[in-house]
Amino acid sequence: MHRLNVPLPGREYEILIEKGLLDRVGARCRVTLLRATRVALVTDSNVGPLYAQRVKESLEKSRFQVKLITIPAGEKSKCPEMLAFLWEEMLAFGLTRTDSVVALGGGVVGDLAGFAAATLLRGVDYVQIPTTLLAQVDSSVGGKVAVDLKAGKNLAGAFWQPRSVLMDPEVLNTLPDRVFSDGMAEVIKYGCILDGDFFDMLEQCPSRAQVMEVIEQVLHICCALKAEVVLQDEHDLGRRMLLNFGHTLGHAYEKAYHYETYTHGEAVAAGMCAAAQLGVQMGITPADVPGRIAALVERFRLPTEIPCSREDYAGAVGLDKKGQGNQISVILLRALGEAEAVRLNKAELLDRIEEIRKKS
Amino acid sequence: MHRLNVPLPGREYEILIEKGLLDRVGARCRVTLLRATRVALVTDSNVGPLYAQRVKESLEKSRFQVKLITIPAGEKSKCPEMLAFLWEEMLAFGLTRTDSVVALGGGVVGDLAGFAAATLLRGVDYVQIPTTLLAQVDSSVGGKVAVDLKAGKNLAGAFWQPRSVLMDPEVLNTLPDRVFSDGMAEVIKYGCILDGDFFDMLEQCPSRAQVMEVIEQVLHICCALKAEVVLQDEHDLGRRMLLNFGHTLGHAYEKAYHYETYTHGEAVAAGMCAAAQLGVQMGITPADVPGRIAALVERFRLPTEIPCSREDYAGAVGLDKKGQGNQISVILLRALGEAEAVRLNKAELLDRIEEIRKKS
Repeated sequence: MHRLNVPLPGREYEILIEKGLLDRVGARCRVTLLRATRVALVTDSNVGPLYAQRVKESLEKSRFQVKLITIPAGEKSKCPEMLAFLWEEMLAFGLTRTDSVVALGGGVVGDLAGFAAATLLRGVDYVQIPTTLLAQVDSSVGGKVAVDLKAGKNLAGAFWQPRSVLMDPEVLNTLPDRVFSDGMAEVIKYGCILDGDFFDMLEQCPSRAQVMEVIEQVLHICCALKAEVVLQDEHDLGRRMLLNFGHTLGHAYEKAYHYETYTHGEAVAAGMCAAAQLGVQMGITPADVPGRIAALVERFRLPTEIPCSREDYAGAVGLDKKGQGNQISVILLRALGEAEAVRLNKAELLDRIEEIRKKS
Repeated sequence: MHRLNVPLPGREYEILIEKGLLDRVGARCRVTLLRATRVALVTDSNVGPLYAQRVKESLEKSRFQVKLITIPAGEKSKCPEMLAFLWEEMLAFGLTRTDSVVALGGGVVGDLAGFAAATLLRGVDYVQIPTTLLAQVDSSVGGKVAVDLKAGKNLAGAFWQPRSVLMDPEVLNTLPDRVFSDGMAEVIKYGCILDGDFFDMLEQCPSRAQVMEVIEQVLHICCALKAEVVLQDEHDLGRRMLLNFGHTLGHAYEKAYHYETYTHGEAVAAGMCAAAQLGVQMGITPADVPGRIAALVERFRLPTEIPCSREDYAGAVGLDKKGQGNQISVILLRALGEAEAVRLNKAELLDRIEEIRKKS
């Protein structure tokens, strides 16, 4: 078992990574949820049929009363109406302030159920059981929960830390290849921005099967790296921005294709490749970096480039939550494993991106 | 001007109490909202026509861009749908993480706009301008924001502290008598539970006109008393329970009449009278206390008693968020100005209430 402590002041919690952990969820929750008698188990229509029964039985064996709430799979469920639906269902079940929410699923389930937990009765405990690689390496640390609004993704939400995060790497075996790769983009990102040795390690196992051989280590490293950043910056003000490497341009791609054509990971992969080239162009990133990132990204069938008009870039950059006024912070690499935020004029950023696209 | 500092760790803010302050809102916000350029000014259809224009002009004079959002007056607006409406309106206006929400109104506006601010972009600043006596003495301190759900009031929400609270006592002049009295119940409560001298002072000005002569002092004392309690217990676990004096039974009355027949303050007034009698019956409260509370309550045309069946009490007590299992904490008075939480079996509480009602 891999165990990682996230020592947030006042809201310390543990991430456990272990094959077969799904069948021991009840016992783990008995340790962390000391006062809970009821558990609202939230999942979606993809994950529910595969794993909900096992988790429910494990919780019941540990004498929790469990209500299973299944939402339709997909980003569309991450909306205010579904949030209100969860609130009402949880209260109808009789959940009190000492009870808990358990989120079993990917990012949508985690973000939505987490936001419901953050706000139900002004905050109840929640436990995350992330079932996609992306959710395991990205949403398990940081406490960001949210719903989407008409104006964009994740625009209403909270910072709410889970009581514990339970990861069973075996659930990854049922993921389609494309969803696995979606998570690999974020895995590669951690190597790029924070840990050159980890990037080297990933270059040594450039396939899904090879990654799965060392998956517990991979999950542990990613969560530890993210925890290190988040602990320095719980409320997303400074250092946490580094995690946006590939994301400013990635958002442009996602938006340009209405979040339909490309997954988040695919957009981030192409965004990282473009940001690496941008870094070289600005004399910040060593010349061999874009090629190494592109090579690794391609091994997981992620795109190194996504067509996007200047208007789409402009729209995405103008609306970017991190942007203030005419300037924008872009994350660039000093080296593989070392990132920094660079302030740029938005128009200049668009010019530079255009130049890179002409060359390629 | 009365100035009260609420020194919450990391979220310190100021309460200002001053006649005519409505016209100086802009200047005050310039001092507290250092990075804001846009302000979403939320009000309701009662308060808006009276005061929104003055506040908007004051803000604009201080170079804020202001969007006025008016919700229908009344508790029905404090719902998830209206919360989502505020989120979308604020984003359509272009509000960013460094901008602010200003809530101009009573408890409904403050709770709803405060919850929107707590969650929009995972939290933006907000400034409260409470316009009812109840909101001034109750919602200005404590950071509780929420919406109502089908299952009951304030069931989804957050703890979110305002950046500042601006009180203009002159706005109270336009309140109907009944709404003024609604707030007086909470004012009297502070005397009962925390400050015997303040209770004596209230006995010396037993009319609306007399209270208005010393209104700045009254507001200051109430907020200072609440701040003292809340600071010791930001997350509503122990000492803050004392503020529930009169509220457990009050909730039963409100619920029994579907929140329609009696205002919150009227229900609390009758609840305090009953709790005082309960305290005497249990040998905790001195015998003269119920009479003194009832006399003061009556001067503001608040009820000292509300008919309520055993079933209604039982339902309210069983669903009470503070109740855990068969036991319930009831706040009783050791003396005027000194309260304590007493654990009681729920059935015993109902028996005792029944006995008191038979006697009266």
